[in-house]
Amino acid sequence: MARPVTIIGSFVSPYVRKVLACLHLKGIPFEVDPITPFFGDDAFERLSPLRRIPVLIDGDFHASDSSVICAYLDEAYPGHPLLPADPCDRARARWLEEYADTRLGDLLIWSLFYQRVVRPLVWGEPTDEARVAAALEEGIPAALDYLEQQLPADGFLFGEIGVADIAIASFFRNGDYAGFTIDRARWPRAAGHVERTLEHPCVATLLAFENVQRSANIKGRRQALLDAGAPLTEQSWGVREPKRGVMAL
Amino acid sequence: MARPVTIIGSFVSPYVRKVLACLHLKGIPFEVDPITPFFGDDAFERLSPLRRIPVLIDGDFHASDSSVICAYLDEAYPGHPLLPADPCDRARARWLEEYADTRLGDLLIWSLFYQRVVRPLVWGEPTDEARVAAALEEGIPAALDYLEQQLPADGFLFGEIGVADIAIASFFRNGDYAGFTIDRARWPRAAGHVERTLEHPCVATLLAFENVQRSANIKGRRQALLDAGAPLTEQSWGVREPKRGVMAL
Repeated sequence: MARPVTIIGSFVSPYVRKVLACLHLKGIPFEVDPITPFFGDDAFERLSPLRRIPVLIDGDFHASDSSVICAYLDEAYPGHPLLPADPCDRARARWLEEYADTRLGDLLIWSLFYQRVVRPLVWGEPTDEARVAAALEEGIPAALDYLEQQLPADGFLFGEIGVADIAIASFFRNGDYAGFTIDRARWPRAAGHVERTLEHPCVATLLAFENVQRSANIKGRRQALLDAGAPLTEQSWGVREPKRGVMAL
Repeated sequence: MARPVTIIGSFVSPYVRKVLACLHLKGIPFEVDPITPFFGDDAFERLSPLRRIPVLIDGDFHASDSSVICAYLDEAYPGHPLLPADPCDRARARWLEEYADTRLGDLLIWSLFYQRVVRPLVWGEPTDEARVAAALEEGIPAALDYLEQQLPADGFLFGEIGVADIAIASFFRNGDYAGFTIDRARWPRAAGHVERTLEHPCVATLLAFENVQRSANIKGRRQALLDAGAPLTEQSWGVREPKRGVMAL
């Protein structure tokens, strides 16, 4: 396993974070092409027909969609299993991963992180405050009520940490970046589970790179990521330097 | 395998059709609770937190999300495999299933079938003609250009028919219900693949039930489905008789 796989994507994407944490868990060496979201070029679109990040490149093989990538890693590589063994548990894990990727994505990314961070800082557009308020007052509490029934009081969903734990927790990291914290008194299981997962080494090790990526200094970002120890590719499939004056994620 | 599994959902849903065709392929006995989409009750929401159809009930176990259900069926039951064997092929099959479920779903369901069939006939609302036109002139041709590169000139994607073939073709059945036909001169591979898949017994056997479900006669629908040989449940988790005067799908 000398040759690392390549992940195209930003360290602050919850979907990229999920895949990188799974690579860490399985002990698969990787390099990242830290492209700026929304700035992929035509070569990127050939790798990712829906222009989504992350993209995995593994020799002659490539795949997009974080769930497809994690399923591939679990089947193509040995090491820590990302899914539990029992078919019913596997289905529940896949469901919770899907719930995170779609419902938590809609709430914590598109209604919160995108509105509060990306729109003003990347696009120079105003935040849709009504959408933020609806998410904070209705959507996110309802999702946390559901998760509170699903998540364990201790440990992880299926014993060892796996892709479902990581997928759920990853979205709350972006929620945190947009100023949202889970109310521990109201949702103690969800708060504890997310905290345990984000503190697990497979996720925690990525935090330094996320902090660099979130800084406003685009020009020095690549060097700062290298200085922080991030494993970066030489080649880039996206656009490394978006237009001047646009803050990058 | 004496006890059939239950599928809650409508015969005209592309996601339900995918699961029923996979059950046929694997030879798993099933019964359908043919609820009307958009009319599920609270018991249904407990089974399907995002209120999606289909839902699978298999003894004490239940699952929602068609991709999660098909993955479960492939792992929990013997018989015809729904995914190919090689990890790279499996990833490509999962990706094409995801592409169908999201991109073709957006184009052929939400931009076409929902606009031309559901809005006027179920909700009594006007069709969004601009959205239909954009899908017909841009979105669907671009998706077919992509599929034309992906689909085989003969046979199925990975030798035997599987979930990726079925997922793709299923959306074009709803496209057909909304008046869209693939131009065989422009996209010969896509047109041929979709036709072969829809004519495969696992999908073709469902057509009679779809034709009953599409009829306007709500009151007689259950009996008409039984007369057509549809395997229906006794219990219903949804709402069998939506409010008077609303045409059901």
